[in-house]
Amino acid sequence: MSFRVSVIPGDGVGPEIYFSSKKILSKLIEIYGLKIDFIEVEAGDAALSKYGEALPKQTLKVIESSDMILKGPVGESAMDVVVKLRQMYDMYANIRPAKSIPGVPNKYGNVDVLIVRENTEDLYKGIEHEISEGVAVGLKIISTTASVRIAKVALEYARKRRGKVTCVHKANVMRVTDGLFARSCRDVLKGNVEYNEMYVDAAAANLVKDPGMFDVIVTTNVYGDILSDEASQIAGSLGLAPSSNIGEKKSLFEPVHGAAFDIAGKGIVNPTAFLLSVSMMLERMYELSKNQRYLEAARSLTNSIYYVYSESKKLTPDVGGSSKLSDMIEEIYRRIT
Amino acid sequence: MSFRVSVIPGDGVGPEIYFSSKKILSKLIEIYGLKIDFIEVEAGDAALSKYGEALPKQTLKVIESSDMILKGPVGESAMDVVVKLRQMYDMYANIRPAKSIPGVPNKYGNVDVLIVRENTEDLYKGIEHEISEGVAVGLKIISTTASVRIAKVALEYARKRRGKVTCVHKANVMRVTDGLFARSCRDVLKGNVEYNEMYVDAAAANLVKDPGMFDVIVTTNVYGDILSDEASQIAGSLGLAPSSNIGEKKSLFEPVHGAAFDIAGKGIVNPTAFLLSVSMMLERMYELSKNQRYLEAARSLTNSIYYVYSESKKLTPDVGGSSKLSDMIEEIYRRIT
Ligand SMILES: CC(C)[C@H](C(=O)O)[C@@H](O)C(=O)O
Ligand SMILES: CC(C)[C@H](C(=O)O)[C@@H](O)C(=O)O
Repeated sequence: MSFRVSVIPGDGVGPEIYFSSKKILSKLIEIYGLKIDFIEVEAGDAALSKYGEALPKQTLKVIESSDMILKGPVGESAMDVVVKLRQMYDMYANIRPAKSIPGVPNKYGNVDVLIVRENTEDLYKGIEHEISEGVAVGLKIISTTASVRIAKVALEYARKRRGKVTCVHKANVMRVTDGLFARSCRDVLKGNVEYNEMYVDAAAANLVKDPGMFDVIVTTNVYGDILSDEASQIAGSLGLAPSSNIGEKKSLFEPVHGAAFDIAGKGIVNPTAFLLSVSMMLERMYELSKNQRYLEAARSLTNSIYYVYSESKKLTPDVGGSSKLSDMIEEIYRRIT
Repeated sequence: MSFRVSVIPGDGVGPEIYFSSKKILSKLIEIYGLKIDFIEVEAGDAALSKYGEALPKQTLKVIESSDMILKGPVGESAMDVVVKLRQMYDMYANIRPAKSIPGVPNKYGNVDVLIVRENTEDLYKGIEHEISEGVAVGLKIISTTASVRIAKVALEYARKRRGKVTCVHKANVMRVTDGLFARSCRDVLKGNVEYNEMYVDAAAANLVKDPGMFDVIVTTNVYGDILSDEASQIAGSLGLAPSSNIGEKKSLFEPVHGAAFDIAGKGIVNPTAFLLSVSMMLERMYELSKNQRYLEAARSLTNSIYYVYSESKKLTPDVGGSSKLSDMIEEIYRRIT
């Protein structure tokens, strides 16, 4: 089994992260004998100003024939790239690990929460209208099908982790929509795993109070967007958080952080979130191919990154180091065996 | 000018907090010569099971003729009590200080963020429907009128504070609804105060990263619900956070915490959030009456609470003490002069 991957280097710090990471990708492919073709495509703010479309037709054509998408951060046009792709290819499960990296200081010690965010509906459907002058309405859409489907994903992950799922909603206020989501989760999860429910405001506070009370959180699109950024910062830094968007036919892997235009081109951006997203991609390739080598490659990459943190010699300024992107990449590259 | 206040003792720990706080209220009234009548009314879970309505007619009748409402925490029926009252009386500004109390340990040092939450629209309108089997739709309603109105409240508070407002939204995804909110805030605030905008996911992360970057946050109803719980936990404890719901005709004051049924009746609940809500009520009475004595009473109460924390002798278990509710109340009572 071989994989075709469309790569969107992205905007801001995106291209420098991707281009300096290429040697790591090549080394993994070589050592583990992986069968992956990378095809670079344009999408994002730069594509928008060049072609008038954030997601140009030629890019979509390549993506159409790819198995996966590896995406760097995108600027203001992110909605038209990533939200569009998620819906277009029904990549319904947004998986966001908020996990501390040993060596990165944080106020909470060892944090390990996995957020499973429904990725296709809610207000992200983008159905909105100014129904009369000065009055706007957006539709929050929640369906049983999508809710049951995401609850099943949470169940799978919980079984591989600490066996606990917290369903986060606000069904005391949004009785019909969040009520339906909560009921779907309850049906799938209760009895099959340690299961509880929490209102989203309480969850936002409890993540701050004691992230250790969570294992897997399953939630709707908007709450998942908010809680995953919060949780990754609690784990240490949003800047280090990877994510995957999983669908039946295609998946997309991307760092959670943005394009960081303020430091773009300076060669000091931290590549961790992007590289951990590559690890998630390799894990997905293993799931699909059942070929152990993809899993080994994923582990080698993750371990190499962790090793560089534990050594703490070649880190970028955002995590307290004074190294350049290229030095940190070199060090990770060297560790890969 | 005299004030008529309906008191909803509430469910769970609500009644014990209110009934033991009465001596403090009486002392303030006596020392400062305040003109306040308290009328106790029933609302919440207990009222629901007794009368079949969480907000019974006789309660509404008393509230109708009151200037203010002082409310303890309410259980599962909170939506039918507080959200209903907010909308019924157009109490459009939900003011939520997230402020550290010296003596209460927290990971962030001195935090002082004020969240100004729009309190009447968004998905809280409760317009929801299962449009076909397994597909639910809720309406997120955002209007220019309500957005401009809340932005003006934020402006007023910022002027009395550090002069900075952050408008939190997600207009990159919800372009029409959040777009309208952001535009309204920009129109009112930009140029009149130090103004910036932030996506809600970034705001949730930045509160964790560095709460000091915020002074006043103005946001829509749902985001405000989530961020205010998060922020108050970052300031020290959600359990200590007061709030007010301000309207032209009536206002409602309530602790942010819930009914805490698990510790109800044990006499160990912390009365701080309720009493700080009383302070906010007294401040509002000052604003309306311009009678300095209400302000003095508010300050005396707040200072007495702070004093008891700084002494750290009579604190309830949730903040590391071993005192009972009644001891803590007694100590606050004694300090009031
Ligand atoms: C860029 C934005 C559209 C996106 C989202 O809201 O989903 C991002 O915040 C994320 O979480 O991946
Ligand atoms: C109890 C609930 C309806 C309420 C809300 O969501 O507004 C509460 O969480 C709050 O923030 O006051």
